[in-house]
Amino acid sequence: MSSLEDQAFGLLNTYSNGFMVSQVLFAACDLGVFDLLAEAREPLDSAAVAAHLGASCHGMELLLDACVTLKLLRVDTRRGKAFYGNTELSSTYLTTASPTTQRNMLLYLARTTYHCWAHLAEAVREGRSQYLKAFGVPSEELFTAIYRSEDERLQFMRGLQDVWGVNGRSVLSAFDLSSFPVICDLGGDFFKDPLPEADLYILARILHDWTDEKCAHLLERVYRACKPGGGVLVVEGLLDADGRGPLTAQLWSLNMLVQTEGRERTPAQYCELLAAAGFGTVCCRRTRGLYHAVLATRGPPTPCSPRSLVPFN
Amino acid sequence: MSSLEDQAFGLLNTYSNGFMVSQVLFAACDLGVFDLLAEAREPLDSAAVAAHLGASCHGMELLLDACVTLKLLRVDTRRGKAFYGNTELSSTYLTTASPTTQRNMLLYLARTTYHCWAHLAEAVREGRSQYLKAFGVPSEELFTAIYRSEDERLQFMRGLQDVWGVNGRSVLSAFDLSSFPVICDLGGDFFKDPLPEADLYILARILHDWTDEKCAHLLERVYRACKPGGGVLVVEGLLDADGRGPLTAQLWSLNMLVQTEGRERTPAQYCELLAAAGFGTVCCRRTRGLYHAVLATRGPPTPCSPRSLVPFN
Repeated sequence: MSSLEDQAFGLLNTYSNGFMVSQVLFAACDLGVFDLLAEAREPLDSAAVAAHLGASCHGMELLLDACVTLKLLRVDTRRGKAFYGNTELSSTYLTTASPTTQRNMLLYLARTTYHCWAHLAEAVREGRSQYLKAFGVPSEELFTAIYRSEDERLQFMRGLQDVWGVNGRSVLSAFDLSSFPVICDLGGDFFKDPLPEADLYILARILHDWTDEKCAHLLERVYRACKPGGGVLVVEGLLDADGRGPLTAQLWSLNMLVQTEGRERTPAQYCELLAAAGFGTVCCRRTRGLYHAVLATRGPPTPCSPRSLVPFN
Repeated sequence: MSSLEDQAFGLLNTYSNGFMVSQVLFAACDLGVFDLLAEAREPLDSAAVAAHLGASCHGMELLLDACVTLKLLRVDTRRGKAFYGNTELSSTYLTTASPTTQRNMLLYLARTTYHCWAHLAEAVREGRSQYLKAFGVPSEELFTAIYRSEDERLQFMRGLQDVWGVNGRSVLSAFDLSSFPVICDLGGDFFKDPLPEADLYILARILHDWTDEKCAHLLERVYRACKPGGGVLVVEGLLDADGRGPLTAQLWSLNMLVQTEGRERTPAQYCELLAAAGFGTVCCRRTRGLYHAVLATRGPPTPCSPRSLVPFN
């Protein structure tokens, strides 16, 4: 192989092993490796970890060593014996007690999303959610499928909490919201029930679940509930203008195909939906994180951004 | 988030999305995207690809755009419309007609390995194969499970062909084998049947399927079949001496846990097994690829490498 072929083959290998890397992370969370190492007063050897967690010695050693290579754990060798401890990454994001834990979201990915994605080819062929194949649950009522059991509903809710624990601050500080005294974070059955009175409505990772038609219907309801000068803050991952990046948003859009009836959208697509619902001013701001903010207000277009996109900061 | 936290969170995101990246690759292979684009005389737009492959327009466009970001496809925009074609990577490794295609192995990973890995946490807990949970097939007879249907057996065989199509040359040229006129590549039921007469036996990705005990039994059989001066070439992925790398070998070792009763081993572990079976000279050579070669010969230790490891080249 030439070095160029080496490189291409290496890339292919990285992609085809991707699911194994995900599962190493998921399994270590699931088995409680990071929590145990956080609670232990000192690094533990693999036999001690296996014994504490009721796991096989050989399997646990392999898992811990893979975590070391992935920088999820560190290892110290003393008298020829390996002792494992958490890294900054695992302490911050993978232990249950950390305020920025992502453990619930990772377990949700492991227990639900991973299984839906086993049917990606069929999702692309059929153009729809794969809950029926993955879990035997019909997906005509989207959230009946997503909340397919009480445990699953709680896991999903806790996962969302994890996401906002890390990403909430950046999306809420993307705009100065001080002119909106009463803010309502919309959730639940917002297609039917009267919306509570508020100066600003937040739709965080709501629109990406639904078709353009249902988004239009929801945004019209929100628009009608808005007072003049009131508005809506849409929080979503955003695709680039040409839809061809960033990778995370593209994968999420495929995830919407596999798990919902929606899609991720470009800033222009959100602006179009919001303008069509009647909002006069629409501003879009990218954050440094994975989620971004689109603020739309009811009223005539303001001179600074007449029905159009403010360049991303 | 500080930039260090950004970096750690980005890494976590890469790991947790890994299975999605794998499935983008697998689904594009499965649906025949790369084959269609190889057969077409010119780049095709996403609607044409969807129509040819009987897939949804929206799903196909998402899949193709994700492939572009992953460098599995290239895109040309003409008059505002996107046209997709294969890259060097996909032409070389993902089209059925390419002599170095990996398509069969990727489909095997998608249809079998991905499902077994859904149970990694349980595999680590129990220390054994997850065929029963993944497919309802008991795994006491390892290859009864692995060949769980005729289609599956053929898919597995074709996948192995793909692997050697790319990696065969480097492992077979790691040593000068010209002094072995008759070479027998061992496969099938080699624990029971008499071994054919040969100067050199090849065990390629065989030992990693089995426990140390079964490896010892098999190597003793091979040793007894060897003439003086004859030998065995063991071809395997190799773990580093401390077992803590490279990542691919670690993931394969976990895969052996999930799918077989074996494990990947370090050079020293293979040398020990071979020496214990009676082989006098054992040399180990790493190639530039994913598989490496250990040559052991029957006879007294030669001065150049007395029962020991030759430094990797």
